[in-house]
Amino acid sequence: MYEKPQDLWKACREGVWTRPTAGLAPGYAQANLVILPKEDAFDFLRLAQRNPKPIPLLEVLETGDWEPKLTAPGADLRTDLPAYRVYRNGELTEERQEIRDLWRDDLVSFLIGCSFTFETPLLAAGLPVRHIECGCNVPMYRTNRMCIPSGRFSGPMVVSMRPIPAHLVAKAVTVTARFPAVHGAPVHIGDPAALGIADVGRPDYGDPVPINPGEVPVFWACGVTPQAVALQSKPAFMITHAPGHMFVTSVLDEEIANS
Amino acid sequence: MYEKPQDLWKACREGVWTRPTAGLAPGYAQANLVILPKEDAFDFLRLAQRNPKPIPLLEVLETGDWEPKLTAPGADLRTDLPAYRVYRNGELTEERQEIRDLWRDDLVSFLIGCSFTFETPLLAAGLPVRHIECGCNVPMYRTNRMCIPSGRFSGPMVVSMRPIPAHLVAKAVTVTARFPAVHGAPVHIGDPAALGIADVGRPDYGDPVPINPGEVPVFWACGVTPQAVALQSKPAFMITHAPGHMFVTSVLDEEIANS
Repeated sequence: MYEKPQDLWKACREGVWTRPTAGLAPGYAQANLVILPKEDAFDFLRLAQRNPKPIPLLEVLETGDWEPKLTAPGADLRTDLPAYRVYRNGELTEERQEIRDLWRDDLVSFLIGCSFTFETPLLAAGLPVRHIECGCNVPMYRTNRMCIPSGRFSGPMVVSMRPIPAHLVAKAVTVTARFPAVHGAPVHIGDPAALGIADVGRPDYGDPVPINPGEVPVFWACGVTPQAVALQSKPAFMITHAPGHMFVTSVLDEEIANS
Repeated sequence: MYEKPQDLWKACREGVWTRPTAGLAPGYAQANLVILPKEDAFDFLRLAQRNPKPIPLLEVLETGDWEPKLTAPGADLRTDLPAYRVYRNGELTEERQEIRDLWRDDLVSFLIGCSFTFETPLLAAGLPVRHIECGCNVPMYRTNRMCIPSGRFSGPMVVSMRPIPAHLVAKAVTVTARFPAVHGAPVHIGDPAALGIADVGRPDYGDPVPINPGEVPVFWACGVTPQAVALQSKPAFMITHAPGHMFVTSVLDEEIANS
């Protein structure tokens, strides 16, 4: 469909593409977007520094800037995503296709790594990715592990789960550990109850997937965490991407991998 | 001398220890200290996010806090270092043993990793550390590589240099790559001129060391960078540790290593 990020940016800008980004511009890192006013941006940046597994930063833009000069030069974060969500006082008030008229000089944009990036190397290493096999969304869960709070922001870590055959769990660790910028190695392997997950068949976000005999549930920190934590503290104003409608950077997956 | 960080903190607090910290509390991570008012702290934190090799953050404290709850619970950053420097409008105005009377509710403290931490594993792996052999300070150089700027902060990366026998250079890379929180792998191996260093025998900071036949100069990003960059932009108020008089955390070196 769209092979290059630049083509996708243009299609979003012109209102031609308004759907999810999974599978588009393969090989390029996709990112979660969080936009906050400067008054909340320092607390949020320190939150990311303290919680790099759930909130791995790909880029933090200059205050008031909408062009990601480091990870997507030429793009415009006000128009180049398929869909946005606007929150006021912690409530979702709008979903829209562009945010040009909402822009303010005091807004700071955060691009946060997305685990889509490590699913390609997982598949390449012969590991199953169940929600891709099932054609559904990855199951995600709120946990009993709290993020280290920062200023006004506090809340639980959200995790995603992929069932992995026991003899391949170590491989799943080493493959994903190479990608700390997109959540990296798992945060928990095995017993869901230890994370406070009562029923692994009933995720808080996304869809349930079957765990086959001989498979272990493996949990990775999830990019839903920063939005969940930010919303819990009800910031006066926040803009994010709409779920699944990510920003696609012009950075190759391999460029953000550890050597 | 002082085996435990807690004993050193107390000795500093009581004015009993006022000298450099090299070799004290062996095995515990030592840190550079930068304290800035909140108005400059966001630009500085974003600078660190963009330049993790020269500015690897161990902890960013809550605004107004002086206890590093994550890396040194029980310590007081106002008293528990042997010596401090106070800068006003980019000029060094005082060196003193404690900063209690200068404390303000809007100050944000940054603890930044120090390459002292990876010299122990270098030695353990059989690699020479020339400035330790010579009993002098490590040679450091301003380079022609600019940090990615952030808001008011911009300036060159400073590097430290250790001569390594050619057949051990790869080992020096792998040993230090395990410690991204204290500058990690080298940023440059070989030709000093490519970094804009005219004469490797005349460092900008620290002391010169001999490079023996068959040795390659290996350059690591250096913790002097954040102070040099911050000073270049002349912040109204900044406090740092005095050179060599580091803050010793209660985190073990191995705790901040990659597995």
